[in-house]
Amino acid sequence: MLVECIPNVSEGRRAEVVAGMAEAIRAAPGARLLDSSSDASHNRSVFTLVGNASAVEQAVLALFERAVASIDLRTHTGEHPRLGAVDVVPFVPIEDVTMAECVALAKKVAASVAERFKVPVYLYEEASANPARRNLEDIRRGEFEGLAAKMASEGWAPDYGPAAPHPSAGASVIGARMPLIAYNINLATDRLDVAKKIAAAIRQSSGGFRYVKAAGFKLEDRGIVQVSMNLTNYEKTPIFRVFEVVKREAERYGVSILESEIVGLVPSAALNAAAEFYLQIEGFKPDQVLEHKLRQV
Amino acid sequence: MLVECIPNVSEGRRAEVVAGMAEAIRAAPGARLLDSSSDASHNRSVFTLVGNASAVEQAVLALFERAVASIDLRTHTGEHPRLGAVDVVPFVPIEDVTMAECVALAKKVAASVAERFKVPVYLYEEASANPARRNLEDIRRGEFEGLAAKMASEGWAPDYGPAAPHPSAGASVIGARMPLIAYNINLATDRLDVAKKIAAAIRQSSGGFRYVKAAGFKLEDRGIVQVSMNLTNYEKTPIFRVFEVVKREAERYGVSILESEIVGLVPSAALNAAAEFYLQIEGFKPDQVLEHKLRQV
Repeated sequence: MLVECIPNVSEGRRAEVVAGMAEAIRAAPGARLLDSSSDASHNRSVFTLVGNASAVEQAVLALFERAVASIDLRTHTGEHPRLGAVDVVPFVPIEDVTMAECVALAKKVAASVAERFKVPVYLYEEASANPARRNLEDIRRGEFEGLAAKMASEGWAPDYGPAAPHPSAGASVIGARMPLIAYNINLATDRLDVAKKIAAAIRQSSGGFRYVKAAGFKLEDRGIVQVSMNLTNYEKTPIFRVFEVVKREAERYGVSILESEIVGLVPSAALNAAAEFYLQIEGFKPDQVLEHKLRQV
Repeated sequence: MLVECIPNVSEGRRAEVVAGMAEAIRAAPGARLLDSSSDASHNRSVFTLVGNASAVEQAVLALFERAVASIDLRTHTGEHPRLGAVDVVPFVPIEDVTMAECVALAKKVAASVAERFKVPVYLYEEASANPARRNLEDIRRGEFEGLAAKMASEGWAPDYGPAAPHPSAGASVIGARMPLIAYNINLATDRLDVAKKIAAAIRQSSGGFRYVKAAGFKLEDRGIVQVSMNLTNYEKTPIFRVFEVVKREAERYGVSILESEIVGLVPSAALNAAAEFYLQIEGFKPDQVLEHKLRQV
């Protein structure tokens, strides 16, 4: 079982504090720290770690212990919006784990954080039962400086912990979401209006697929245009369906797809789903993938 | 780095001997025994193990030590053709390893086997530089009983080791090959002639793709027909190309593809290649697959 976790903390300037938090994560048995990146102007660091549910839970609690002890939001400045010392903690299902299990993990960690560190916690995304509190932006609006007033207002009692902010560590937002896929389709044309119309057709905000964010861009140096996308749930809005609709919409303007590209990482299951669709494979099981099978032995 | 190795040994009846060989494989540090299956009428066992090159090498040499000590071909009977105690040893590239590296591994193991156990070795498949000695069937023709005469004849000196058979252990065939994919396409028709014509069109033996073996069958209980295939090199003859040709040939008879199925295991790369083809993904790298990346950390 493999869960990914990407905690965002409100410290990107003091290298020794960031190193201490990374060390706390690494010290948790079974947790692997894949990446750590800090931004001084945001005054924020993002850690990427993986492991089974228990390993990731221990690593996150160890991170909280360090962060709450060494970060004080009352003196924190930075360009990025933030609510707390450990600002956001998403749990992401990667392999042999369901979204429901990641939601359960998020709630378990949230309860521990509230109890051990007296930090109030809001659940978000898939872990939130409240539609008004699913989006991170809605929860974080007002930031740390507005948090005490927000928590006292109607509908903003936290899901776990005290009803007022932690004096120095504010509040944390903990939840579960699917892995995000950055996917671009390049069109064999220089007509920006076509890319923009297709982006509008497929994105949720203007009536398209539920889990697609999209915009049209010009790639000046190549003389072509691009439909640039974020796919936020590849199980419910699969890559192949998006590709086929983009292709069909482009045809309506006499335009072909030149190529597509995946930026960064993509879960194996997202690619397998495309293979299954186009090859019409019936009854396929994840453990038929050789590498997946090998990891289970 | 992950190499698969599937040694076939000439013992499928004495359970304690088979268990001893499995134990020898398991005792090699880093080698994982995935499967062991014995057939009494064939009097033969097949082990499936994985590991890095060094681990697999040690496991195979430990297996040879046991097998040469406990199997005597002079008294061995069984339905399956065989040449030696350890009859055939293919090395198969799975992940982060090239075919050239598996060929080098096969040669290294062959040299060790010849030196340590005085067993002559023939290289086969990708490890063989001699077209007349690539196919296992050609090398094994005449079996153990005809081996002394065959080795003395023109063109049958072994690649490694003594010029005559080992008295009890015969000779071994060691080499490298791609993983095999068992792939079937079901047609929405009961016309067996269509399945047979399509099978003939795509298989190497009658002019089709180099790495396809195919036959047409009737699935009586479902009232449909099937093109049943073995794909012996998914890099050079990819699944999607075979699928598209079967689809096009079926159209010529007014027949549609109902579905396809992968039987058993398939390497991740074979499915990814299909996703890349249909989604027109350019510049895709294996370490963009999240699970692949995670295994490298």
